[in-house]
Amino acid sequence: MNHFFKVKSLEEVMERIKDFSSVESETIPVFEAFSRILAEDLIAKKDLPGFRRATMDGYAVAASSTFGASESNPAWLDIAGTLSMGDIPEFTLEAGKAAGISTGGMLPKGADSVVMVEHTELIDEKSVEIYKSVAPLQNVIDASEDFAENETVLPKGTYIRPQEEGLAAGLGFSEIRVYKRPKVGIISTGDEIVPIEEEPLPGKIRDINSYTLSGFIKEAQAEPVCYGIVKDDPAALKRALEKALEETDMVLISGGSSVGTRDFTIEAISSLPDTEILAHGMSISPGKPTIFARAGKKPVWGLPGQVVSAMVVLKIVVIPFLNQLKGLDNRDRTIRVPAILSRNVASAQGRREFIRVLLERQADRMIAKPVLGKSGLIRTMIHADGLLEIGDHVEGLEKDTLVHIILL
Amino acid sequence: MNHFFKVKSLEEVMERIKDFSSVESETIPVFEAFSRILAEDLIAKKDLPGFRRATMDGYAVAASSTFGASESNPAWLDIAGTLSMGDIPEFTLEAGKAAGISTGGMLPKGADSVVMVEHTELIDEKSVEIYKSVAPLQNVIDASEDFAENETVLPKGTYIRPQEEGLAAGLGFSEIRVYKRPKVGIISTGDEIVPIEEEPLPGKIRDINSYTLSGFIKEAQAEPVCYGIVKDDPAALKRALEKALEETDMVLISGGSSVGTRDFTIEAISSLPDTEILAHGMSISPGKPTIFARAGKKPVWGLPGQVVSAMVVLKIVVIPFLNQLKGLDNRDRTIRVPAILSRNVASAQGRREFIRVLLERQADRMIAKPVLGKSGLIRTMIHADGLLEIGDHVEGLEKDTLVHIILL
Repeated sequence: MNHFFKVKSLEEVMERIKDFSSVESETIPVFEAFSRILAEDLIAKKDLPGFRRATMDGYAVAASSTFGASESNPAWLDIAGTLSMGDIPEFTLEAGKAAGISTGGMLPKGADSVVMVEHTELIDEKSVEIYKSVAPLQNVIDASEDFAENETVLPKGTYIRPQEEGLAAGLGFSEIRVYKRPKVGIISTGDEIVPIEEEPLPGKIRDINSYTLSGFIKEAQAEPVCYGIVKDDPAALKRALEKALEETDMVLISGGSSVGTRDFTIEAISSLPDTEILAHGMSISPGKPTIFARAGKKPVWGLPGQVVSAMVVLKIVVIPFLNQLKGLDNRDRTIRVPAILSRNVASAQGRREFIRVLLERQADRMIAKPVLGKSGLIRTMIHADGLLEIGDHVEGLEKDTLVHIILL
Repeated sequence: MNHFFKVKSLEEVMERIKDFSSVESETIPVFEAFSRILAEDLIAKKDLPGFRRATMDGYAVAASSTFGASESNPAWLDIAGTLSMGDIPEFTLEAGKAAGISTGGMLPKGADSVVMVEHTELIDEKSVEIYKSVAPLQNVIDASEDFAENETVLPKGTYIRPQEEGLAAGLGFSEIRVYKRPKVGIISTGDEIVPIEEEPLPGKIRDINSYTLSGFIKEAQAEPVCYGIVKDDPAALKRALEKALEETDMVLISGGSSVGTRDFTIEAISSLPDTEILAHGMSISPGKPTIFARAGKKPVWGLPGQVVSAMVVLKIVVIPFLNQLKGLDNRDRTIRVPAILSRNVASAQGRREFIRVLLERQADRMIAKPVLGKSGLIRTMIHADGLLEIGDHVEGLEKDTLVHIILL
């Protein structure tokens, strides 16, 4: 192999995110938009709610008709009518008059506020006493107060939560343009790996990584495509890689924890046209043997075979690239929960370390307890709620330090 | 209507969770298990990894052969062979001998540890110098060290993250028993509500709640089933409710923000056999007009029509019930992010308040900024990252208070 052995820092790898473009977009019914990413600015075609609307049950009034009203000196207003939900009020409310209205109802012309029913007393069919004055626009939402016509309500790149889906629906977008869900190819490699349906002989182990990795890909709202297990054979790996690159937007080669296999991965990637090895090793722990390459316009990752390392690298390094492919805006959404470290933690300088921790709620604070056990045990990831990141130039952290945990 | 008007506290409502049972279970391929809930204990059928395995590249040895070895006084060992990945070592390693091994490889009998290749120097084909002693089990994972045969590795009720899916796969469970995804019926009510495809006349508004609510249901890994918009007509509401109760595991009636509609909801529920109104009003804000009932064995909710209230009640009150239906263990998974409050917040005593907040990361802490704007504006939910819960007996919170934010 004639490649340069280039170990990169996490920052150096992250800088390459902008070299990759988002996948194509598609138009889908808004009912299916939850968890997708907007591929165009959403612009209000009309005002929302579109009319002056009551936010309380009570009486629509011109605020000025209530000025000075109090318990001891109520305002006495004539009832001009009672509005039902969904009614279009056909009259104009004059000063000194009130109209019964329900929450959500449309105010008549001339009315600019609503007196809560609790602050009124009905005297007879025709008149009501008001015990508390209201200010203009009190207890109403004005026609364009939520969103105004032509306003950009959601920018391109927005992740669609339930409220964004509801807003799009409320603005009348029955279909919206979103990015497609990226497809991520997963190739498992290694002579020691057997399909999970097989009873492994001594020395062999079932293919765990295809399952953990596809779980994380699904969690990131993308689509995993598994290409099975490839033996330690550069030609077979090349064929699987070519197929995966043709059919998906990013490829993960999992395995290659032994030096030989790592070379096969580099060899297979390099044998394809227009490829570039961007990192051969990363100064993070776990995850040092990670390979990062570009094949045409697509990222290709050689992930460590060790199950815990593969998960950490996927979560910390690969998912941000997947977010770029998904078209997500670049706001950092990684949730970090502040917590107090339960014990001293040692760390080596010159690399970024990620320590598995358990989070425990204690009265008004969270405690982060490092999960003990060898780093190769999947058990440690089962017991962990999150990862503690320790900087490249930190020798360790002391008990009771305030830390910020990345949730798993 | 002959019902008792019973406003309940959040605690009183939450106590009813245990009155409801989880949905049925089904067997699915483990590849589809991400985000499902285990419906049976998962018990290891064999040890994992099942053999003594190297966690480093280097030399398998009996630790005792290296005792006392150092840079200045290396141990000199004969090479008994080199093991490839997936090989079953057919020899027993004698004291004073070493076997080349890769990460993940199986140790031969007689070997109990691995010397990292960095701490060795190959002298010739037959011998290697060891510069650092190892302890028994150093740089190896023992046969049953991750999980032992017959151990309960994941209890019933476990939420399956990527690592749990991988573990099940690694233990050879190609299929696993999980709870079905509950179905949640959503009925929108109100004469003022129109389908989103329609251009609403003045006084009318598009059906936002069906979309926000189904988004939250999907986020909670359940299946929303929408029954469209029902006009303010008790008979029509009863028919829709009957159908939804027949086809789904829980029903949400959204709307009924006006007093009349609220009565229709109560009336429709009460007209069905074996029903009980458990709460008619809840002392939370927003969300006071919430109705909670049991119809047969299923929970039925009358959610406020106001879009923000409906979302808050769903997130805070309904989702815990959905988790019960899902079969999720009762560990509280609500993520609360500690943050510093940016300003004073007033609150009324006697009710639980939920204030929308924006989270801002500042150096080593998070700042929670209350989102300004009337509570009926969906805009406030679009700008919010989370909810600040204020206790029933708290008059307000001061600027710089440490608070714990529920993420949206």
